[in-house]
Amino acid sequence: MPPAHPFDDDKLKEECGIFGVIGTQDAANFVALGLHALQHRGQEAGGIVSHDAELGFQSARRFGYVRDNFTSQKVMETLPGPLAIGHVRYSTSGNKGQTAIRDVQPFFGEFAMGGAAIAHNGNITNANALRRELIERGSIFQSSSDSECIIHLMARSLQRNIPERMEDALRRVEGAFSIVAMTRTKLIGVRDPLGVRPLVLGRVGEGWALSSETCALDIIGAEFVREIEPGEMVVITDKGVESHFPFRRVAPRFCIFEHVYFSRPDSILGGRSVYETRENIGRELAKESPVEADLVCPVPDSGTPAAIGFSLQSGIPYAMGIIRNQYMGRTFIEPTEQIRNMGVRLKLNVNRALIKGKRVILVDDSVVRGTTSRKIKEMILDAGAAEVHFRIASPPTAWPCFYGVDTPQREKLLAATMSEDEMREHLGVDSLKFISLDGLYRAVGEAEGRNKSCPQYCDACFSGEYPVKPSDMLEKGFEMKAAE
Amino acid sequence: MPPAHPFDDDKLKEECGIFGVIGTQDAANFVALGLHALQHRGQEAGGIVSHDAELGFQSARRFGYVRDNFTSQKVMETLPGPLAIGHVRYSTSGNKGQTAIRDVQPFFGEFAMGGAAIAHNGNITNANALRRELIERGSIFQSSSDSECIIHLMARSLQRNIPERMEDALRRVEGAFSIVAMTRTKLIGVRDPLGVRPLVLGRVGEGWALSSETCALDIIGAEFVREIEPGEMVVITDKGVESHFPFRRVAPRFCIFEHVYFSRPDSILGGRSVYETRENIGRELAKESPVEADLVCPVPDSGTPAAIGFSLQSGIPYAMGIIRNQYMGRTFIEPTEQIRNMGVRLKLNVNRALIKGKRVILVDDSVVRGTTSRKIKEMILDAGAAEVHFRIASPPTAWPCFYGVDTPQREKLLAATMSEDEMREHLGVDSLKFISLDGLYRAVGEAEGRNKSCPQYCDACFSGEYPVKPSDMLEKGFEMKAAE
Amino acid sequence: MPPAHPFDDDKLKEECGIFGVIGTQDAANFVALGLHALQHRGQEAGGIVSHDAELGFQSARRFGYVRDNFTSQKVMETLPGPLAIGHVRYSTSGNKGQTAIRDVQPFFGEFAMGGAAIAHNGNITNANALRRELIERGSIFQSSSDSECIIHLMARSLQRNIPERMEDALRRVEGAFSIVAMTRTKLIGVRDPLGVRPLVLGRVGEGWALSSETCALDIIGAEFVREIEPGEMVVITDKGVESHFPFRRVAPRFCIFEHVYFSRPDSILGGRSVYETRENIGRELAKESPVEADLVCPVPDSGTPAAIGFSLQSGIPYAMGIIRNQYMGRTFIEPTEQIRNMGVRLKLNVNRALIKGKRVILVDDSVVRGTTSRKIKEMILDAGAAEVHFRIASPPTAWPCFYGVDTPQREKLLAATMSEDEMREHLGVDSLKFISLDGLYRAVGEAEGRNKSCPQYCDACFSGEYPVKPSDMLEKGFEMKAAE
Amino acid sequence: MPPAHPFDDDKLKEECGIFGVIGTQDAANFVALGLHALQHRGQEAGGIVSHDAELGFQSARRFGYVRDNFTSQKVMETLPGPLAIGHVRYSTSGNKGQTAIRDVQPFFGEFAMGGAAIAHNGNITNANALRRELIERGSIFQSSSDSECIIHLMARSLQRNIPERMEDALRRVEGAFSIVAMTRTKLIGVRDPLGVRPLVLGRVGEGWALSSETCALDIIGAEFVREIEPGEMVVITDKGVESHFPFRRVAPRFCIFEHVYFSRPDSILGGRSVYETRENIGRELAKESPVEADLVCPVPDSGTPAAIGFSLQSGIPYAMGIIRNQYMGRTFIEPTEQIRNMGVRLKLNVNRALIKGKRVILVDDSVVRGTTSRKIKEMILDAGAAEVHFRIASPPTAWPCFYGVDTPQREKLLAATMSEDEMREHLGVDSLKFISLDGLYRAVGEAEGRNKSCPQYCDACFSGEYPVKPSDMLEKGFEMKAAE
Repeated sequence: MPPAHPFDDDKLKEECGIFGVIGTQDAANFVALGLHALQHRGQEAGGIVSHDAELGFQSARRFGYVRDNFTSQKVMETLPGPLAIGHVRYSTSGNKGQTAIRDVQPFFGEFAMGGAAIAHNGNITNANALRRELIERGSIFQSSSDSECIIHLMARSLQRNIPERMEDALRRVEGAFSIVAMTRTKLIGVRDPLGVRPLVLGRVGEGWALSSETCALDIIGAEFVREIEPGEMVVITDKGVESHFPFRRVAPRFCIFEHVYFSRPDSILGGRSVYETRENIGRELAKESPVEADLVCPVPDSGTPAAIGFSLQSGIPYAMGIIRNQYMGRTFIEPTEQIRNMGVRLKLNVNRALIKGKRVILVDDSVVRGTTSRKIKEMILDAGAAEVHFRIASPPTAWPCFYGVDTPQREKLLAATMSEDEMREHLGVDSLKFISLDGLYRAVGEAEGRNKSCPQYCDACFSGEYPVKPSDMLEKGFEMKAAE
Repeated sequence: MPPAHPFDDDKLKEECGIFGVIGTQDAANFVALGLHALQHRGQEAGGIVSHDAELGFQSARRFGYVRDNFTSQKVMETLPGPLAIGHVRYSTSGNKGQTAIRDVQPFFGEFAMGGAAIAHNGNITNANALRRELIERGSIFQSSSDSECIIHLMARSLQRNIPERMEDALRRVEGAFSIVAMTRTKLIGVRDPLGVRPLVLGRVGEGWALSSETCALDIIGAEFVREIEPGEMVVITDKGVESHFPFRRVAPRFCIFEHVYFSRPDSILGGRSVYETRENIGRELAKESPVEADLVCPVPDSGTPAAIGFSLQSGIPYAMGIIRNQYMGRTFIEPTEQIRNMGVRLKLNVNRALIKGKRVILVDDSVVRGTTSRKIKEMILDAGAAEVHFRIASPPTAWPCFYGVDTPQREKLLAATMSEDEMREHLGVDSLKFISLDGLYRAVGEAEGRNKSCPQYCDACFSGEYPVKPSDMLEKGFEMKAAE
Repeated sequence: MPPAHPFDDDKLKEECGIFGVIGTQDAANFVALGLHALQHRGQEAGGIVSHDAELGFQSARRFGYVRDNFTSQKVMETLPGPLAIGHVRYSTSGNKGQTAIRDVQPFFGEFAMGGAAIAHNGNITNANALRRELIERGSIFQSSSDSECIIHLMARSLQRNIPERMEDALRRVEGAFSIVAMTRTKLIGVRDPLGVRPLVLGRVGEGWALSSETCALDIIGAEFVREIEPGEMVVITDKGVESHFPFRRVAPRFCIFEHVYFSRPDSILGGRSVYETRENIGRELAKESPVEADLVCPVPDSGTPAAIGFSLQSGIPYAMGIIRNQYMGRTFIEPTEQIRNMGVRLKLNVNRALIKGKRVILVDDSVVRGTTSRKIKEMILDAGAAEVHFRIASPPTAWPCFYGVDTPQREKLLAATMSEDEMREHLGVDSLKFISLDGLYRAVGEAEGRNKSCPQYCDACFSGEYPVKPSDMLEKGFEMKAAE
Repeated sequence: MPPAHPFDDDKLKEECGIFGVIGTQDAANFVALGLHALQHRGQEAGGIVSHDAELGFQSARRFGYVRDNFTSQKVMETLPGPLAIGHVRYSTSGNKGQTAIRDVQPFFGEFAMGGAAIAHNGNITNANALRRELIERGSIFQSSSDSECIIHLMARSLQRNIPERMEDALRRVEGAFSIVAMTRTKLIGVRDPLGVRPLVLGRVGEGWALSSETCALDIIGAEFVREIEPGEMVVITDKGVESHFPFRRVAPRFCIFEHVYFSRPDSILGGRSVYETRENIGRELAKESPVEADLVCPVPDSGTPAAIGFSLQSGIPYAMGIIRNQYMGRTFIEPTEQIRNMGVRLKLNVNRALIKGKRVILVDDSVVRGTTSRKIKEMILDAGAAEVHFRIASPPTAWPCFYGVDTPQREKLLAATMSEDEMREHLGVDSLKFISLDGLYRAVGEAEGRNKSCPQYCDACFSGEYPVKPSDMLEKGFEMKAAE
């Protein structure tokens, strides 16, 4: 799970979580709870739109956590009705210097046949070209978000109803998208043909819910029904769930990093508990890269399940050698110089008495810039560890993601510029091992490993093989991996 | 570590953390960091007083977290100087309905020979009588806190310097107190003769720090020197540390619950890592009350080390069957009915896919009212567990604490009205076992267990044997355990 | 000047003030000052857009007073550059229940040839039809404001530059509009062909300013150059002021109520001080409706100049019989029942010792619902006045305004349902006299009075003769005065 | 009335207003309204204490205006009960750099026989000596306010009830004081023997009110009963009003500046409307210092009544040549450089069209530093006035006040260093005339003028004759006027 604080620029960050409910009283309350459970997918801001027969569409969009913005009686009373959708976001693919409340989703458009709101998880890779074209033709954009293109394309569609307008719009769009949308009477869910981002369907009482992850169904007491399929559009009304497949079918490529890090360990992906998958990764890692040591310690909290798996496989005792300060938050406004320099020590402390003199295996989910890994290594050595061995629950992250994840530029990725051995030296640890790409595929259930000619997942961040051409980025000068 | 949210009324809560620094630039910055590391000892409010040669004493007192109040450049610039103390508090022994900023410590008094500020962790058990006497004689109280008596007693002392006035005052005081205080040039630390609450001394560069726990020394990079001894007063100036023993010596009675729950797992108490002590408790528990099962799961986060110990001792695999939502906070202002009813589900979710069909041992640190334990049991059964066995890392909590801990009234404590068997039935679990009092003493290093004629710790919350007479409470009608 | 507080629903309220500056350093600072001087034209919210060569367009939009939002260093630093426009507004012609920050002007649009921002004072009387048409064609509206139509019409224009697109757009628009707009390099001002709302040009150093009123030129030390003419568009760049007349010319109809009440007494309208015009109105009133009395008292503050004129003409001494509480504001959030019931007494107090036993002439600017007049009469009688005579500095307000003024529905206007005599009885005063329509025209300088066949001013609120057909209102069922 | 904004450092400022109510439902609501009406006596902060039989004493103290802090249902619900007192303050005689909420009155003390709260208008001239003595004896001060001495003196009194303790305390106190205090069952009012500051008694329904001025009785619909006499203490319970005279009687010396400026024009002082007194001052001024001119203009708002009087006496027409921006407030937080330099122009604008070419008499209430007068003169000349004549409704302010008024240090007072003629030259006006001291006494009703051997008023700010020795100030080096 992505940590919440501003000093941690050393993780990839999921950019969005989406949730929608139809057919219950005060649907927005459920949406607030669902978004709270999805907060790990986006902490910067959140928004909810609801519809009530009498009052029409209502919306609230705020910076900050769901729990601080969408739990009070006062706010929730402004969002009545049996139909609501919501969105949490980490940051926008737009201009980050100018992040404004107008960039916070759901986006809303009033069309001739009535209003619609949409919440988007993913990233449109041809947004720049679409935006230029739409402005030429007289559309006025309110945000710097790529997602706003969808609503303008819908506004200009000649179709007579909103789901068809959405199909029209999405056929123009390239990239990754899982979408939850609503009209006055319909809740709509869509996944792009590759199914890069997750989207699941749940049953809540007499109503229905759509969610990025199953953990958000649990919090509202909804039953998990099934995943929305890649390329599927579901239109839910009081008559039930209709399913469409408006796009040309292709082989799916679900994001493998959802298994490694983005999704919550209590969510179910592809029929498997994310926690168990991560424990499996730890076991695979212990098989691939064993080492003699006294303790297996997770880098909390995201390294925990893999560390448990590593311990179970290797028989080396599991211990909490690093303790997280649970009162760490993100609200450091204009911090003092001293605070700014504290970095990871504000969040983590080494369990000195435990570590002293021990050979320690540290299990982390990934290495991005490597800055945090270095600091943790220093803390562990300061505390008197005899040896430090890093085991990483993902392959080297060498390529940026353009499908809805906030990644540093390629040159900032440690693995883009160094071999595993150089990284080990750079981090100054006794050993450093990443799980292999095949090992990771095995851990997620592909017994034969990765199918090279037609990979079962999107693993572009590891392999550099992008299943959708990143047009906007190519335009800006990004260079893709040379064909082999 | 005590969780931070308002729905968790099912834990005992430490009421205070204290920290002080002398002899460094911008001492208040270090105090802020130290208090951040002690936030688990008190989340309601915090305060810092600093002294600067030119500007004199400055103070800031705020409701809310340290990280939100005492990290900005703007606030910290108002607290200059090489000497500062601070306090975080959970709640006051005063009137809880009227909690006001004036109840937030440190308290400050201007005496004829200059000002002094004090921060108090503990509780004065004869505060009511002292307050009545002081008011009769013309003192005006500003707060409803028991701790304010100390500063008024100091104001009326006839001694010519502040440390001696403090000795005078503390000799009138009964109860538990660890105190950090400051004058214009001195940092003062005191522990009551029994040493109920912790206080440690650290070296930070050329200066010194006093702290409730060692974890707060770590965050500022201070070296842990030693614990302040029960009944000791240290007076620290630029000449070094002077030690006094102003009270009659008695056998110490450190709070055993600090080992069980209050202190952070990365702190060192009595020369041992708290984490290891808790792991030991888990091992003892596995020895005392074994059971056949598939998984050992902690109730996060406070049950984690004991669960690891239980797993290591029993060989039953450790797993995270319950996942904590890390974005849970305490800021639910006027929440909706629905939110209020969510209770523990806002904070915890069961890892359904993992738990299904399994026999699960749940390890928790303590059972207070039992309300949370019931809800967790229900969640686990809903998720399809085959059996649920509770193992508790402390003996039954049957008596309130009057020494600086927020405990429910005796009749609200589950163990005050039920036998272990009745509790098992009440909670509806397959088995329920608490560690024995002797087992707990063994886990904290007393190989022979508890010395009944002269217990090595204060364990009043388990045994009902109060080492200091709770005078104020007796006045209010509290009935002590009949002598056997 | 319109009072600022929420209990005063008994005045007509100007809906907007606009201001723009080009060719000075930190133009936004001047705009903030100008808007502060125009605050009487709109107190609910304000916005400023600036343009800087490096940073592009920047904007800030806030609820509340200019002095509270746009005077701090911190905010103004975000609005750099030599070109800026701003807007204050009272309320929108849109949905009042849903007033949102997105309804706060200036509105901004990014066109293919660059961005433009516009600020509008007035009201578009065919906005509903325009909006329907634009939505049909795929435009997405972000606000409920009629003014947003202009920017969408501009986005769809086929002209190659922004001033021409604005001409295109405004030719589609009916109603009253004074507009200040900006591109990256141009400041643009426009008045509708009738010139209903004011707009003036000023010279500030080497730069230029456009303003609703001259009082806002004074505050920035700008020299008043001239009024923008009805139907004129000025385009100001660093090369100077270009003037266009893009509309068909018609006889102008400036709003006569600007003279009576809306404009500040220190502004100059049509070459005359508003203060002197109002003093003239008082003189005319004294001539038309003399009465024997001891004191002439204004209803503060808007009745003051007319009361002075009445006193000078009649020779009856002028006195402040009613005192205004200058600390009255508008920020009563969820006031207590008692506060709510106070009404006008929170704002005004009678000078009891002065009034007692006197025959008092009260001069007010207008009677709208009559609720305030009744309360003032009661206060005066309570204080022991012997007689109370009302003299009103405008004719009976019997018709709503649809050109940018917030008027109650017709049936709420006292003069719409009662004769002058019935009103006198309703208010319970010894006499009540309004100035005649001809008297008012004489006071504003039309020696011959009103030209019935072609009135020199828009006086629809008195006469029911609307110079522009209120299409949207007719659609909603408003009934115009039958032709005589 | 004192203006409210931070650029106006050119007025003397009353430091406090006090108000109390007993015997009505929700007394605090009345107190809030009363304080709102007294806001001109103190704008920095306000506080209210109430007492309810069940909940005991409750208090709320806030920075800012009464209307912003004490009108919401939410706040007022926390202040229940039939007995309440309140205080507004401009600033403290304490340390201005450290103004803190703890300096905001009413002050509260818990005594052996119950609690009491007091609100003080005035200044204790021997506070430093009292404070030193009290600290020596063990009292702990919480504020930097001189008024806190009273509550500590009361705490140490040996009397058995609170009114007697207050008498004890006040006999130790030197200086000026009007006090409103409360116990659980009593409302108490006191004026010092000279009666420097005002205090009046009112009847509100079955209850009673005490107020600094009668205008605050008007707002709550209370009937003005009488002034509290100099040296009188009234103790009001449900049995009625008891009167005591606990001090040695001396000839009264009411503050004459209350007539000139501090009190609201609609208040009654000494049986006369303040407005009429000020009009009289204008008439006296016109008699003493006539001049040929075209217009008499007030410097708004405080010069208005004297200007009207001057006009009535001289026959020169009264006109509003300077217009005040009614949206001027005090909330300029970290204003831009440009805003800071605007000064008086943010607040006042000249009615240019009116002033041009005219000989103008400007009537102001006083000249303190002269900075504002200079700026106004410049604005008037810029607008093209032919001549500018200043007429001042008070004698030259040459001495600081030590009795509860915020005055600049003596050397900052223009009249302390210049003769009338030098001031005229300094201000650069055609003539400058102050009313004579005898003229002022005549205007307040002393037909014979000032009694030099035993002045009827405190006029120390004009005469340098201090009726109470300013001990604290003498200690700090202040030099009194040499005896003649």
